[in-house]
This record gives sequence, C-alpha cells and structure tokens, in this order.
Amino acid sequence: MAECEYSITLIGAGTIGLSFAALHLTKNPICTVTIYDTRPDLQAYVKQHLPGYLQDADQSACFSRLQFADDLQAAVKDATTVQEQGPENADFKVSIWPRIEQHAPWDAIFWSSTSGIPASVQSAQMKDPSRLVVVHPYNPPHIMPLLEVVPSAYTSQGTMDRTLAYWRALGRSPVVVKKECTGFVANRLAFALYREACSLVAQGVVDVKNLDEIVQTSMGPRWSVAGPFKSYHAGGGEGGLTSFMDKIGGTVQECWDGSEKDVKKGKIDVGGKWQADVCRQADEAYGVVDTTERDEKTRKVLAAVGRH
Amino acid sequence: MAECEYSITLIGAGTIGLSFAALHLTKNPICTVTIYDTRPDLQAYVKQHLPGYLQDADQSACFSRLQFADDLQAAVKDATTVQEQGPENADFKVSIWPRIEQHAPWDAIFWSSTSGIPASVQSAQMKDPSRLVVVHPYNPPHIMPLLEVVPSAYTSQGTMDRTLAYWRALGRSPVVVKKECTGFVANRLAFALYREACSLVAQGVVDVKNLDEIVQTSMGPRWSVAGPFKSYHAGGGEGGLTSFMDKIGGTVQECWDGSEKDVKKGKIDVGGKWQADVCRQADEAYGVVDTTERDEKTRKVLAAVGRH
Repeated sequence: MAECEYSITLIGAGTIGLSFAALHLTKNPICTVTIYDTRPDLQAYVKQHLPGYLQDADQSACFSRLQFADDLQAAVKDATTVQEQGPENADFKVSIWPRIEQHAPWDAIFWSSTSGIPASVQSAQMKDPSRLVVVHPYNPPHIMPLLEVVPSAYTSQGTMDRTLAYWRALGRSPVVVKKECTGFVANRLAFALYREACSLVAQGVVDVKNLDEIVQTSMGPRWSVAGPFKSYHAGGGEGGLTSFMDKIGGTVQECWDGSEKDVKKGKIDVGGKWQADVCRQADEAYGVVDTTERDEKTRKVLAAVGRH
Repeated sequence: MAECEYSITLIGAGTIGLSFAALHLTKNPICTVTIYDTRPDLQAYVKQHLPGYLQDADQSACFSRLQFADDLQAAVKDATTVQEQGPENADFKVSIWPRIEQHAPWDAIFWSSTSGIPASVQSAQMKDPSRLVVVHPYNPPHIMPLLEVVPSAYTSQGTMDRTLAYWRALGRSPVVVKKECTGFVANRLAFALYREACSLVAQGVVDVKNLDEIVQTSMGPRWSVAGPFKSYHAGGGEGGLTSFMDKIGGTVQECWDGSEKDVKKGKIDVGGKWQADVCRQADEAYGVVDTTERDEKTRKVLAAVGRH
C-alpha cells in the first residue's frame, strides 16, 4: 500500500514541514517530495535547514528527490498525497482545500497536520470532504513515532486505509482517534498532567526542575514501555485493572479530589498569577534547551523499546 | 556518607520490601539487610522470591549479607536505618514507630515507604519525630530510579542529608517534596493524566489499547528525556516557556476547559459507570501482563538515558 503515496506535496515549510520532508525522504525511498511555501527564499531556506533533519541519511540522494514549487497548482498537480502544515487558522485551511482539490489528481488524498482544527471544519467548502483526514504529529515527526489520525464524519474508509497503511509501512505508529475533540488525545493527556504540574509548583510543593526530574525517573520510562492503563492493569496483578481500582481506588480519588479543589480555586488558568514564576523557574533551570541532545537521547529510548 | 547506612532493617517483606532488599544488597556492597515480618514462613518465602529481584547479581553473596528477624526489638537493635513498608494504615504506622524508636540505636534514621500517610501523621507518638522521613518509591524500586523524599515539619536536616546522600551514592534519584500533600507528586501527576485517559475512553474518543499506544509513542519517550516543563520550555524556542505559553496558551486552556467540562459532569469518579467498561477493555487488551518483559525494557530505557 505504501507505494500508493509516492509523490508527496508538503504545504508549508516550517519546522513541521521540514521534519515531515525528512521523514518521507529517509523512510520512503521511492517517493518524491514537493515543498510549497510562499516564502521568497524557499529553496535557500530548505537547503540550509533540511540537512539538520536528515541525520545519517545520504543527503544528496534525499535532495535529488526533492522539488520546490511557488505556485499551488504546480505543487499539487501530480501529487498522490498533499500534506498541509500551513498557518494554524481555520480561514486559511478552509480556503486552501478547495483550491488543492481543484488542481490535484482525482485520487490524491489530503492530510492536515493541525493540532486543533478538525477535518470537519477544514473541509467545509470542499466538493469531496471524504479525501481529507487530520494526521497530527507529535513534534518532531521525523523522530517521534506517533501520528494521531483523526477523521471527520465525511472521511472515507479508503482515505483511512491508505493513510494507515502508509504510516505503518514507514514504521510509524498511526493511531485512530474515533471522535473529533478539542486537542485530540495526546495533547489532552499531556496538558492534564501539565496543569497538575503547574498547580503543584504554584503551591510550592516542588519546583520546576525537581518536578521534571520526578517525571523523568518514573512515569517517563514506565510509559515508554507500558501506557497508563497497561501499567495499572499490571499493578493489579492477576486481577488486573479491576483489582487495582478496588485496592488503590481510594487513593486515586483522594488525589483527584485534591487536584480538583486546588484547580477550582481558579488558580491554574493560562495567564494566571502562577505563570510568571513557573516561566522564570524554567528559564533559570534550563536556559535555552539543546534539542539536539534531547533528540539523540529520544532516539536511544525509542530504540530501547523497539520503536526505531 | 553512604557508609553511614550499613545495617538496614526492612519492616515488611511484601513486594516493595523484597525489591528494596535487592536494591540495597546489589547497590550497596558493604551493607547487611535484616528483614522483619510477622509471616510464619518468612525465610522460606524470601528465599523463594528474592532471587527474582536479584537479576545478574551474585546471589550467594547477597544472601550472605541477609538476616531475618521475627522479633521487632532484635530486628532494629543494630540498625543504622529502619525502612518500613508495612500495612498501609495510619494506626499501624503510628503505633510501630515508638516501638522502633525505643529499641533502635539513638542515631538510626527511619524511612517509610508509604504512598500516602505523611510523616507528620506517622510520627504523632514518637519522642523524636526528627528521625522520620517518607521515602516513597516508584514501583518497583530496584528498577525505577525515583524516590520521593517527603519530610514532615519535624524532620531534621541531618536526617534529610543522610537520606539524600545514601540514595545518591546508590545512583538513585531522590527528589525532595517540600510540602506534604495528598499522594505526593508522582501519583498526583500520573493520576491527573489517568483521569483524563479514563474520560476520553468513556467518551469513546479512543479505546484503552490505543490510548496506551499514544502515550508509549509520544509522552513516554519524550518525558524519559525531558519532563513536561523542560519539554514545553524547549518548545518555546529561545523565548522558552514564556513564549510557549504566549503561542500555545490558547490551545492549552481550551484543552483544560474541555477536560473540566467533561469531568464536571461527574462522569469520572472512582466507581463510576465508566469503570467497568475501561476495566473490561484492559482485560481484553492485555490479559495478565508479563512484568518481566516490561522490566527488561524499562532497564533498557533507563540505560538509554544514562539512569542505570
């Protein structure tokens, strides 16, 4: 199935666009990639920044399969797949898909990398919304395996099948999100923990750096191997999650009630009083983060769990 | 400093007790470990189950430094450290510490592995509550680096210093929790995400297995390398967490509002209607989890981030 997607057009050459370009070029050796972006220095920009994403790959082989377009019609006319990571606003996305639909081959499929604008909204002015599905990466996509695949009610089974088959063939982890919901799943989960983290720092229970240390030495490694349900299911022994909830449910509820009480006081909303101090602590703890080192370690973790 | 703790008495030989016994015996080659438990088959039980925790270590060398006691006075009389993981109820803990205090050397320090009963409660009937501190592991402690060190207002600096020095000398990650709060920090964070996970499954957005897959292919690996604050601080580029909150704060708040609305409907409390279906899904997805495989992979992840 992966052979279906051999001519991929990327709309938008920001960091997500370049990361996806690197992913396609390195993991799908038969594809060509066309990058469309309205920036005037597009080619120079990509030639400067793409190598940082290509790691140990044969760079000249990758660049030989890379094309540029400054005209949308030309960009999509031979595409098997159009993948969009343009500005994160609904007007832009609603207006660009009918233009893409008009010029792309009839059997091309369409992916949006949006982190929040559902396919049902984006496809409002398309003739055939069955071709569009959200494929939301976890940044940066050339390293992180997850892709949240979020169809609208109009997305066809054919679009879904081709989308899942492609990403699986590339060794990634596409996961279907069955209902469009605010933030999809990964960010909803991460932000729930992040809110509790902000709340605990705001209360002076722990500082920013120590909170990160706690996560890095417990949940991080554990959840790399077994997600929260599997972990608690294992924690319940032979009785599984049912037994875990019977035994530990009281503590779980106490923690939930504690969190709810703290948050209900209205303390932990974006822009609240807590925020400046948390941001200051992050500055002091980390300065500017070296993402190269982070990414190298992340690759090793993924290799350790057989994900790379 | 690590040499201070050379005679460690463990109160309670459940899975946490055995895991700590293995940790001390394998990482602290000069220590002796005394295990106290009221179970009649204590020695046979430990001899049967401890080897599973010792991995590649020299088992006979470990067992040669291991003693048993069925009498509390004998168990603690020569201890430099008494580490308690008995029944998780306050009455038990409040009543045992004065007895330990009475029979242990004057300069021994006391650790409780409790996941929820603060040192300030446990020490209510002690003559000198300065010697007691909670050292809450992330299960299983012979593998997971984190130890939440939670003092009461009475815990002395000397107790803290010796506690932190010991665990650091053993290559673990002791983190001080500055205020006693329900569930301490790790469980508070994990359960916050778990509640959102239960909520999303209950709404039919994603099933149990796919939710775990999402976490295992995104937050798990990321948070093994950089906790949530460091990750979002990096996500903000040179402007750090401040810039991240400026740019992404709207989405963060939308996710928080979405979560709050769902949970406020009263849907996601322990024992709610959602629970049976989530537990059934976990049974179907995982059966009985092979923790040996999980632990082996976890060791590899920890090695990948330089934690083992």
